[in-house]
Amino acid sequence: MGRGDVEPERIVRLEADAVVVLDQRRLPDEEVELRCASAAEVADAIRTLAIRGAPAIGVAAAYGLALAAVRGEDVDAAYDVLASSRPTAVNLRWALDEMRAAVRNLPYDQRVEAAYARAARMADDDVETCRRIGEHGLEIIKTIAAAKKDGGPVNVLTHCNAGWIACVDWGTATAPIYMAHDLGIEVHVWVDETRPRNQGAALTAFELGSHGVPHTIVVDNAGGHLMQHGKVDLVIVGTDRVTANGDVANKIGTYLKALAAKDTGVPFYVALPHSTIDWTLDDGMKIEIEERAQDEVLKMPGRLKDGSVVTVEIAAPGSPAGNPAFDVTPARLVTGLITERGTAPATREGLLKLYPERRPAG
Amino acid sequence: MGRGDVEPERIVRLEADAVVVLDQRRLPDEEVELRCASAAEVADAIRTLAIRGAPAIGVAAAYGLALAAVRGEDVDAAYDVLASSRPTAVNLRWALDEMRAAVRNLPYDQRVEAAYARAARMADDDVETCRRIGEHGLEIIKTIAAAKKDGGPVNVLTHCNAGWIACVDWGTATAPIYMAHDLGIEVHVWVDETRPRNQGAALTAFELGSHGVPHTIVVDNAGGHLMQHGKVDLVIVGTDRVTANGDVANKIGTYLKALAAKDTGVPFYVALPHSTIDWTLDDGMKIEIEERAQDEVLKMPGRLKDGSVVTVEIAAPGSPAGNPAFDVTPARLVTGLITERGTAPATREGLLKLYPERRPAG
Repeated sequence: MGRGDVEPERIVRLEADAVVVLDQRRLPDEEVELRCASAAEVADAIRTLAIRGAPAIGVAAAYGLALAAVRGEDVDAAYDVLASSRPTAVNLRWALDEMRAAVRNLPYDQRVEAAYARAARMADDDVETCRRIGEHGLEIIKTIAAAKKDGGPVNVLTHCNAGWIACVDWGTATAPIYMAHDLGIEVHVWVDETRPRNQGAALTAFELGSHGVPHTIVVDNAGGHLMQHGKVDLVIVGTDRVTANGDVANKIGTYLKALAAKDTGVPFYVALPHSTIDWTLDDGMKIEIEERAQDEVLKMPGRLKDGSVVTVEIAAPGSPAGNPAFDVTPARLVTGLITERGTAPATREGLLKLYPERRPAG
Repeated sequence: MGRGDVEPERIVRLEADAVVVLDQRRLPDEEVELRCASAAEVADAIRTLAIRGAPAIGVAAAYGLALAAVRGEDVDAAYDVLASSRPTAVNLRWALDEMRAAVRNLPYDQRVEAAYARAARMADDDVETCRRIGEHGLEIIKTIAAAKKDGGPVNVLTHCNAGWIACVDWGTATAPIYMAHDLGIEVHVWVDETRPRNQGAALTAFELGSHGVPHTIVVDNAGGHLMQHGKVDLVIVGTDRVTANGDVANKIGTYLKALAAKDTGVPFYVALPHSTIDWTLDDGMKIEIEERAQDEVLKMPGRLKDGSVVTVEIAAPGSPAGNPAFDVTPARLVTGLITERGTAPATREGLLKLYPERRPAG
């Protein structure tokens, strides 16, 4: 079920003595694995974006905790170091809570076995969750394809990377696209470059190209113009956290695309697994937004003609930069939330209808 | 009245045998002049963005036509080659029309003199126009500074470069900022990077830094988030063309910032000289939007540690890119148009009140 040249099992996997991740900082220039021999090293890999994407982070952290259990390390200490590696993604904490609950109060032997089992199930669940998100999103693409009078491709705009590189397989936002493409529905993807780290131009374009899906990279500035001129049929993005009322934290710039979609009547969908929903928050403005290093803005890696990879300074020397990593799209701008249980309106009631077990008792 | 280390008269000037421009493609890495020995070479300099910014383009084209007149070339042919160099900027055509009218039906000797005189007056007018735009915009900044309860700096967000590098001096969008700063009003500028050509990170940051104005570079994705969190007091941008009803064509991505400003209640101003108004158009969606080369998106120049400048490929190999250079911000999103005659609402009536000579007779 691999989506391209990179085998999906290579995104993140657990070996006897290490968590092994595909180092996304090196893509698309090189496919290099990074071995993390401890929970602290996994946390470092998450913090430095060697492994990124909310679902992949969750599984990597779970594996990191399993590794700590195997090594006989203090599980609570490992939990803390992993939980603090990225503040915005809520399923990181969800995955850690699940893992800690699975191993709590067990003797060492059983703890190791339980940790491996829970982490493995989490990875399997992630694949199945993404597949179901893909099926529900596919229905939306099918409807749009059927309604297109000009018979051209369904033009999907996406921001950042919520593809299989960000997950264990399929991806969230990209799953409906892959499924439509595989079914022979003509799709074309506008890939937002996604500054400052270019996850769109580097990772999403790499994914789509590997799988043969027609796509065009555009700078983050271009999406509004494309929507104004009828060149976008729908937007699908992933998310790092959705609040109980449907506000969406995602890569910085998502809010701007949602505003343009609203202004131009383009449907704006967010694809997410249940683990991304933060049932404890009712207001996206309360989500802590990670501020990252200014060098991500001021410098850029790239390939020289000879194929070697260098980092260049791209801004006026001496000028400082700010680097908020996420923004929050208010629920009122979201057409629907595509989950593994179906597509819901971005409202508390919409989410509770899909997840009735979350409805407060009484 | 220079705004920094670069003497303003060096942005664009007319010599006996050439139009000399500061090559903006090399900034901020190097300050190199480019000599254009014919109208065709001036057109090339405009097309390749060696000289850019609507007012500077207008003056450069005027000088190019003067040069053609001096060299005894066919003025109409020179007009055509210059007019086609950038399709979106309306004051390019305005400047050429003015020049052609000034030399028409004159014998060679008088034609040369008239061309020099008209072009020189245009450059002088540009400086004075920008100064007046600065004064009118300054009033807006003063009002906001007086109303700020926390006493912090007035935070201005700007997109692309509408500074003195884009003009002959002062700039349009930046003129109010320089004046406020020079008067001791505390200002801080959020500088949009402005992909794909990074005019914000490279040119605006360079300008502001040279003049000692506090500023922070952010990726184009960040502005909405900053506005949501009260970190932007107003937006001021330049423009390449304003229609008679107040729609604003400007660097790609401007529309997205205008949407965010509207959504968050942040005032959104556009600074422009009269020559930027296209009285023949009543609908910004009819403006021809220049599509530029995909390499501007896929490659990026920058400095290595040793100071040498290289160009690196930054996207997934083989993926294509789209590159629309401008977008149109509908008048309904614009708080006001700051002109050399004062600030008007972005409406036909607002503009006609400032320019009553444009009111249709009868």
